[in-house]
Amino acid sequence: MNKTIVLNSRPIGMPKISDFKFKDETVPVLSDGEILLKAVYVSVDPYLRGRMNDVKSYIPPFELHKPITSGIIAEVVNSKNHDFSKGDFVLGMLAWKEQQVSNGEGLLKVDPEKAPLSAYLGILGMTGITAYLGLTEIGKPNKGETLVVSGAAGAVGSIVGQIGKIMGLHVVGIAGTDEKVEMLKTDFGFDEAINYNTTENMVKALEATCPNGIDVYFDNVGGPISEAVLYNINKYARLINCGAISVYNETSLPKSVSVHTFLIRKSALMQGFIVFDYEEKYPEAMTQLGTWLKEGKLKYTETIRHGFDTIPQAFIDLFDGKNKGKMVIKL
Amino acid sequence: MNKTIVLNSRPIGMPKISDFKFKDETVPVLSDGEILLKAVYVSVDPYLRGRMNDVKSYIPPFELHKPITSGIIAEVVNSKNHDFSKGDFVLGMLAWKEQQVSNGEGLLKVDPEKAPLSAYLGILGMTGITAYLGLTEIGKPNKGETLVVSGAAGAVGSIVGQIGKIMGLHVVGIAGTDEKVEMLKTDFGFDEAINYNTTENMVKALEATCPNGIDVYFDNVGGPISEAVLYNINKYARLINCGAISVYNETSLPKSVSVHTFLIRKSALMQGFIVFDYEEKYPEAMTQLGTWLKEGKLKYTETIRHGFDTIPQAFIDLFDGKNKGKMVIKL
Repeated sequence: MNKTIVLNSRPIGMPKISDFKFKDETVPVLSDGEILLKAVYVSVDPYLRGRMNDVKSYIPPFELHKPITSGIIAEVVNSKNHDFSKGDFVLGMLAWKEQQVSNGEGLLKVDPEKAPLSAYLGILGMTGITAYLGLTEIGKPNKGETLVVSGAAGAVGSIVGQIGKIMGLHVVGIAGTDEKVEMLKTDFGFDEAINYNTTENMVKALEATCPNGIDVYFDNVGGPISEAVLYNINKYARLINCGAISVYNETSLPKSVSVHTFLIRKSALMQGFIVFDYEEKYPEAMTQLGTWLKEGKLKYTETIRHGFDTIPQAFIDLFDGKNKGKMVIKL
Repeated sequence: MNKTIVLNSRPIGMPKISDFKFKDETVPVLSDGEILLKAVYVSVDPYLRGRMNDVKSYIPPFELHKPITSGIIAEVVNSKNHDFSKGDFVLGMLAWKEQQVSNGEGLLKVDPEKAPLSAYLGILGMTGITAYLGLTEIGKPNKGETLVVSGAAGAVGSIVGQIGKIMGLHVVGIAGTDEKVEMLKTDFGFDEAINYNTTENMVKALEATCPNGIDVYFDNVGGPISEAVLYNINKYARLINCGAISVYNETSLPKSVSVHTFLIRKSALMQGFIVFDYEEKYPEAMTQLGTWLKEGKLKYTETIRHGFDTIPQAFIDLFDGKNKGKMVIKL
């Protein structure tokens, strides 16, 4: 039998295990031009939470009682398509199914010799590309400037900070545990890191760690942390809205301090970043990330869970910050 | 004697008459290189409210017990400076004084034959330049797009909307009285205008008047009106934060709906605009505005008060929307 996970109900607030439902299907039979894929690594990402609401956004919402999709690395286990051979590994937006059929459209072959397969979901995949393009396309950092990263110990954040260091920035990370703070400074070379859970006055903590003010803010979280950043921005600051994990589970739109006066006072820019808008720049990003990785300038951390059944809980755990770096499930 | 107006106390919330104090000075005596100026038109502008707080911003705060400064048209009544002759008219950031001395620095000669003197404080001055550069430099509108302007019957707003029409946009204005709404449509050619004081559901009103969504938002007010705009923005919308008159008098920073998720969903941009950042573009703007004015493509409205003593009340009345178009005081 072939297990699949469908959206059983649209989560209200924090997603629950019962919002997901496991189903058994028969293993599909191939037609001409098709390939049979066996999932190897499944990516869970905070942005999937948005697709579980019935709200139009940059990608359409998931349908109720249909399988959820995310970035998946799969092995070709059978092929009736001359572009793919048995044993190939592919990356694609695929369904949460142990096995599935594809006509090959939208799939990218990946080479397990060049990098560990899971890296194609992380540092060499959407995660790394998001970090690189968000920072360079909107942040446009100049050497010597100060970069603050929220959700810094997360998949995107930990890469953003390292790229910042490669580019010669003063880099300050914000994360939620002392362990993460230590990791940012020791393993990832951040200049400073702040534990927002134990810091009483974030405005002052940012002031202390950013003596020259904040020029670029890579925002993965939204909410009160991002509010504190506003008090410390420099003239012409660039605020990259990449994610808002702190508000994804809110049932009503959260209020926060009005950004207007801050942006006016500092001629500052705040812009929403969606990696899918920059498809023509993926190759540039992947090449650059691959080079830095090979040169040992970029490191990455993964949190790997094991087994198809662990996917829903791994997704839910993202919102408690239980991951360090990219969260993937190995099947 | 020579009257002057000093900042008597920093306003808390809405400014009061008692925050200002009239003083008598002797008429100054000229040294070599100096000119004696007699104020003719005084500009009052919402942004001055920010300078009355003791807060660092894009320009330093006013000092207590010192004269307030704003854009002023003055006549040269005596000159010991060979660059200026008696009878010249100049535009400058000058003190609220009936007469004052200057060394000529930062003064721009203006020609009363080419345009009415007050126009150099409005459509041909900072007001017009702000409208033109804010819209073009940040808004970057494309023909056929939809532009929404808040504070649309104000000095800047009424010009923004007209430039929008010249550029082939669908233009919707937001103002606070039926009379202003009528003026926007009849006199200034806005496609639609909304009275926010009598409209129960601004989100729906914007939806109805912007059937193709909102591409560019020229924001002079901030607050709840700007919140309603967020629900109607298109992919890649540009939100120009030019002013926040609705919050200038708030004693604590107002909360509003968090903009993060809106900007992310729509890959939208929000940027603070301060005209002083674009000094190198003033000539381009003034030429373009002058041409449109001569061609009859731009109209302007002024609210003119009379007499030096009316300056403080005229300033206060800005926050009750008692002006239509540019508010100036004729001496």
